[in-house]
Amino acid sequence: MRVILICKYDGSNYHGFQIQPNKITIQEVIEKSLRKLHNKSVRIHMSGRTDAGVHAYIQPIHFDTELILDNNSWVRAVNAYLPKDVVILGAITLNENFHVRYDSISKTYIYKLYIGKYVDPFNVRYVGHFPFKFDYERALECVPYFLGEHDFSSFCSKNNNIENKIRTITNFTINKENEYVTFEISGDGFLYNMVRIIVGTILDVASGKINKEYIETIFEKKDRKYAGKRVSPSGLYLKSVYYNNAEVNQLINNCLKL
Amino acid sequence: MRVILICKYDGSNYHGFQIQPNKITIQEVIEKSLRKLHNKSVRIHMSGRTDAGVHAYIQPIHFDTELILDNNSWVRAVNAYLPKDVVILGAITLNENFHVRYDSISKTYIYKLYIGKYVDPFNVRYVGHFPFKFDYERALECVPYFLGEHDFSSFCSKNNNIENKIRTITNFTINKENEYVTFEISGDGFLYNMVRIIVGTILDVASGKINKEYIETIFEKKDRKYAGKRVSPSGLYLKSVYYNNAEVNQLINNCLKL
Repeated sequence: MRVILICKYDGSNYHGFQIQPNKITIQEVIEKSLRKLHNKSVRIHMSGRTDAGVHAYIQPIHFDTELILDNNSWVRAVNAYLPKDVVILGAITLNENFHVRYDSISKTYIYKLYIGKYVDPFNVRYVGHFPFKFDYERALECVPYFLGEHDFSSFCSKNNNIENKIRTITNFTINKENEYVTFEISGDGFLYNMVRIIVGTILDVASGKINKEYIETIFEKKDRKYAGKRVSPSGLYLKSVYYNNAEVNQLINNCLKL
Repeated sequence: MRVILICKYDGSNYHGFQIQPNKITIQEVIEKSLRKLHNKSVRIHMSGRTDAGVHAYIQPIHFDTELILDNNSWVRAVNAYLPKDVVILGAITLNENFHVRYDSISKTYIYKLYIGKYVDPFNVRYVGHFPFKFDYERALECVPYFLGEHDFSSFCSKNNNIENKIRTITNFTINKENEYVTFEISGDGFLYNMVRIIVGTILDVASGKINKEYIETIFEKKDRKYAGKRVSPSGLYLKSVYYNNAEVNQLINNCLKL
């Protein structure tokens, strides 16, 4: 059987999701919990990697098992061996055709930015910081340049061996409340560091360093060096993932309410 | 001149306020910043110690200096050399009669408790956790036992060499919103671990382990071992400190709004 778990985590203390030698990752602590339950190694798959310091409200993972537990028992059992900053919110058992990475049809990321002078000490791990000129209207005017299908070669970090860099952005909003700005961006998939580079490029427009029209040039160049800086991971959250599977989507919606 | 600074900090990454060998403390990072500004050591005084993992919305400190800066410049200058999880919110310059510890007339602490099954991963550092039976009415009924003047010998940790253990609690409220319970307690002063032991004792009543009347017995015994467990530091916040000094109180009120 294939078990799908929905995780939520504070990424502050982790070197990202994917297992790495000598560094603590989300994947490692989840696999450690599953090893205790199974008395053997269990490999998990994730809907997508998150980098060091990046958070997730919803991160679906899956693994194959011969253990038979009901959904609530999976949640309780895996949580029992997890550190408190990684939590399993829900579980569902499906057949082995479903894959949390290959079957995702839409992902949403949030980027939380603080534009005031001093970040609240309690928010340091949870927002990016931009204590410079930020023209909200100019930021909003960038959105149409990113919506729709584009080749995002200029908006991904170089250590990316994916050949096809065409992605479709289906939704993109920027909200501002006092000194907090929230970017919410949905699409069929995201390249490595893509959200953080898009936000960084918009900050170049919002601060007056470049004009919005230059975003077209950046796309045309298909070269990372033309886009803006990659903003800090602390403000980035994987917010949700959706699939061609009503049961999994329903589970994710329930978990978002927790 | 004596400079009073109002600090706010996330205590998660610190071994408390007071300097200790080989451990990073709030006092150390503030004194390091002041050393850079003065090119010599500067000793600070705090309104009261906070333990490892304990937070502060308002923690007044003071130090003596020959440097002449206006209040805003003190804020900017000290923040420039501080880590992001410790922030100076305000400053005022007074004469050397004022002392942040000896002149305080009232302090308020908050304890944030989560009583649901799994703590939200983003709250792990910021709440205590009590995933057991919690009868809110029973907790409320404890409050009158603590209000007023008492000998709090049973409600402080033993490594406390203060002789006079009589303190007056002037305000004590317990609010519950869904699965979050907030204890707010004000008094003329607090002994070592006093708030955490009071909350732990109230949890014994709320969970049905003891009856509220037993709190009287605990007071009478004047012995730490009769009171409840000390709850985790992660939920504890020094919320405010007040003085017989209108200027300082005004500054603190302004800082609370930031």
